[in-house]
Amino acid sequence: MLDNTSRTRRPFVLAEAVTLLANTPRTLDALLRTLSDDWLAAHEGGETWSPPDVLGHLIHGERTDWLPRARIIMQHGEAQAFEPYDRFAQFAERGRPLPDMLDDFASLRAQNLRDLAALQITPADLERRGRHPDFGPVTLSQLLATWVAHDLDHVIQIARVLGTQYADEVGPWRRYLRVISGQQG
Amino acid sequence: MLDNTSRTRRPFVLAEAVTLLANTPRTLDALLRTLSDDWLAAHEGGETWSPPDVLGHLIHGERTDWLPRARIIMQHGEAQAFEPYDRFAQFAERGRPLPDMLDDFASLRAQNLRDLAALQITPADLERRGRHPDFGPVTLSQLLATWVAHDLDHVIQIARVLGTQYADEVGPWRRYLRVISGQQG
Repeated sequence: MLDNTSRTRRPFVLAEAVTLLANTPRTLDALLRTLSDDWLAAHEGGETWSPPDVLGHLIHGERTDWLPRARIIMQHGEAQAFEPYDRFAQFAERGRPLPDMLDDFASLRAQNLRDLAALQITPADLERRGRHPDFGPVTLSQLLATWVAHDLDHVIQIARVLGTQYADEVGPWRRYLRVISGQQG
Repeated sequence: MLDNTSRTRRPFVLAEAVTLLANTPRTLDALLRTLSDDWLAAHEGGETWSPPDVLGHLIHGERTDWLPRARIIMQHGEAQAFEPYDRFAQFAERGRPLPDMLDDFASLRAQNLRDLAALQITPADLERRGRHPDFGPVTLSQLLATWVAHDLDHVIQIARVLGTQYADEVGPWRRYLRVISGQQG
């Protein structure tokens, strides 16, 4: 039997993280590729993001954040701070056709996972430290675990943006649907 | 330009709902099929559900809930209340191999969407009412919108269960990750 703790937390294992990272482009493709422009324009009001905005953010992360930061840790350790992450860069991609963005994300992710494998990271390397511009020392395994959790955070965001669109349409079922009631369960 | 309201709520359109419903099996397949048994055992503690528990719940809904309820509305209106939904039925499926469950969900969903098309639902039909055992009158469009939102709710749940597994592994990035901090953003 698994005890409770072992089911609520997993230790970082590189091969497992890579499996999860490889799943994200397919997941977003399945969620989004067939949607109409009206659905793709969905957001949560104000300055919140639409699904293509989220996808643009993920593409930007593949280009400038995760793998480049892993390389900095492997090559320079704490001697060279990471570049700050530009959390608004995706707006430059607004208006691009969604299928192109999905294809881009998939090919960038695949290339980054090949490049990650080429780094031949050992268990000892996972403890190497880099320097985050805001909060200082972080390990390579923390960076890679965050890559995974960040993907899942944005899968959640996209599913939430879509589900909330029917907040008025579900009628009395509203209170049973956490995506609409906003309750954590 | 789309105004803000039109981006935060979509009216119910049957063809759009069907598009979203068709995407869910592929989405869950992409998220889950390659995961190890350890990752599939992930839950949020106590009696919370693992990803296969959620999938079992969705399979049960395909078998007994959504399409059968749509048929009851079309055939009997409010004269016949729906069967209550058994929210624990999925535990009978515990131990089934995940690939079988994913295949089952995909084929049940595909069949249900074919059966839904065969009902030839008109815009007037969408206003027909049925009777929910707990909260009384509901329309066919509310039932079908709930089918969609319920899917997305459980996509969110699965992504959250997975992402939370790395709550300790992400180190100082914790506060930037809503899946781990628990903050809505």
